[in-house]
Amino acid sequence: MFRAELEKIVSYEAGKPIELVARDYGVAASDVVKLASNENPFGASEKVRAKLAAIVNQTHRYPDDSYFALKAAIANKYNMNSKNIIIGSGSDQIFEFISHVILERGDIVLQNKIDFAMYAIYTAQAGGETLRAESEIHDLNEFEKLLAKDPKIIYLCTPANPLGNAMDRDEIYKFLPKVNQNSLVVIDAAYMEFAAYKDAKKHIEPRDVTEKFPNVIYTGTFSKAYGLGGMRVGYGIANEKIIKELHKMRAPFNITTLSLAAAIEAIGDQEFVQKTITHNFAEMEKYEKFARDRKIKYIESYTNFITFFFDRQNEASEIAQKLLKNGMIVRDLKSYGLNAIRVTIGLEAENAKFMKLFDEARR
Amino acid sequence: MFRAELEKIVSYEAGKPIELVARDYGVAASDVVKLASNENPFGASEKVRAKLAAIVNQTHRYPDDSYFALKAAIANKYNMNSKNIIIGSGSDQIFEFISHVILERGDIVLQNKIDFAMYAIYTAQAGGETLRAESEIHDLNEFEKLLAKDPKIIYLCTPANPLGNAMDRDEIYKFLPKVNQNSLVVIDAAYMEFAAYKDAKKHIEPRDVTEKFPNVIYTGTFSKAYGLGGMRVGYGIANEKIIKELHKMRAPFNITTLSLAAAIEAIGDQEFVQKTITHNFAEMEKYEKFARDRKIKYIESYTNFITFFFDRQNEASEIAQKLLKNGMIVRDLKSYGLNAIRVTIGLEAENAKFMKLFDEARR
Repeated sequence: MFRAELEKIVSYEAGKPIELVARDYGVAASDVVKLASNENPFGASEKVRAKLAAIVNQTHRYPDDSYFALKAAIANKYNMNSKNIIIGSGSDQIFEFISHVILERGDIVLQNKIDFAMYAIYTAQAGGETLRAESEIHDLNEFEKLLAKDPKIIYLCTPANPLGNAMDRDEIYKFLPKVNQNSLVVIDAAYMEFAAYKDAKKHIEPRDVTEKFPNVIYTGTFSKAYGLGGMRVGYGIANEKIIKELHKMRAPFNITTLSLAAAIEAIGDQEFVQKTITHNFAEMEKYEKFARDRKIKYIESYTNFITFFFDRQNEASEIAQKLLKNGMIVRDLKSYGLNAIRVTIGLEAENAKFMKLFDEARR
Repeated sequence: MFRAELEKIVSYEAGKPIELVARDYGVAASDVVKLASNENPFGASEKVRAKLAAIVNQTHRYPDDSYFALKAAIANKYNMNSKNIIIGSGSDQIFEFISHVILERGDIVLQNKIDFAMYAIYTAQAGGETLRAESEIHDLNEFEKLLAKDPKIIYLCTPANPLGNAMDRDEIYKFLPKVNQNSLVVIDAAYMEFAAYKDAKKHIEPRDVTEKFPNVIYTGTFSKAYGLGGMRVGYGIANEKIIKELHKMRAPFNITTLSLAAAIEAIGDQEFVQKTITHNFAEMEKYEKFARDRKIKYIESYTNFITFFFDRQNEASEIAQKLLKNGMIVRDLKSYGLNAIRVTIGLEAENAKFMKLFDEARR
């Protein structure tokens, strides 16, 4: 009954939710700390919470399916037009649309060796083949060589997940003209707010890149800096022709009425975003010092997480497991082929707790 | 750059949202009545509202992607196992999964002539071809003849949208054994709570039908009787093998954290559902009498809407337009090829207002 080519699809492994860890390890839910899914430790802004509280009686109403007000707000922020914007259930869903509007069976999709796991899953769903660059950190020279394989979609994740590094804008701008105009380049900028704050050289503006390169789509999300991971709102920005085509894959009401209102409120509260980011990098410094003091390898991170690498075989998984038993959830990157853990920068007390439990786990 | 076969896709026309009508026609938003999208006029239950109000600080948390508690509640209600259940962003998304796991280019999908518009859109997205029965009301004898065309998916919408009729269970049970075991039959039961209340002969239990027929999937939704249309939660119930395959198309976190909590709360409040349904049919009687008194044709409805048919060319569209100018939103069924309007059963005052404005519009 089913398409044979789907056999190879392995589902995405999500960060363990707090309830599950509480249930499985007998830790009180209130004692569980989750630093596994790059969620904003402040939650959503007060303005978002107040808005949501005011509309809990609107659950029966389908949202305005044109997403008029949200698109206008995003367009305004990025100095674009609403026609250049598509809304997804997370930027994730934009990748899904892209796979399905472009890929024919066997088409090649180029991505980095270590990259957001959903790219390959969406590629497989649409019958495409994933081609991975060999280097762990994006190496656009290698990508350039691989253009000879005629990839129809090229994913550039910057800053990168789950490694945390970011490419220089200039590096990307040098690469883009070499790409065939019939191939779509996806700049997955889920963590761009963090990178742009830390280093202007990493900052990519959707308008610049999509105007210069008509075969580029920039994707962003409300899940990270805006604290709306659980509300599932992301967006794609590109020229009108691409956006129009992607809309053919969008089902009506692909975000909820409450999510729509929350995102509109969130984008209007840039003060909250700034607070999130400054806190993030202040705490990040503690993690970096912590790692240096213990000679743990890490990559400089332009995101809201830091990834620690280990030498002894299986050490990352062992540590992650010990932490879990103590109610501390981090992401073991074993499924990415790495002996590493990814830790979301949390609240001050959460980070201190991580460091204490981490030291105990390694004793 | 894009798949050529997608050219024929025409996007879904959603019911106009209240804000849009207020904006376009200069009616105060508080005066606009929307009876266009079969939304529950009571909104969500008090329990759901209280739950949502209590968790507006959880927007940053991704939901438990296993949907453990929600699946358990649905399984319990239907006397099934959690392994028989998949959660979608509306039952809509279940149809999307189905299209993508089954259809190869050119595969045939059988549906009724007048049917939920998204079936054909998902079919086209996945490269399939829609074959429509000729009769307006489901005629399973005609469907049986069309089985010779080897459809890979067969949609049975009961009660039907946008017509409102429902098939007898026995009729469906007689049809199902005739279907090839490699074809999937989808029983879209979005309005089943209403039909089951009105007439036991229309009532289909997921357990009965999926146990007797391993190639059947039953889909349900929280959008109608439960008052959660804007929260986007639906489900599919089938044997484990089908559910496992559909999960390959499901992206992680396909419903929001707030939607998950709302649905769990809603399924626990069957009293609210009963209140919704009894109110619905009490008000439905007023609509039926209204139509009979004016010799307006309608089909007996087993749902939360009623569809009025007209004889004079374009009359339905003209009435819908006049109503709109007065802030009354109903659904013109022109895009379905019908000279008809579909009216959602609203609150008592809303229904009275509709009847008044309708009479004025026809004067």
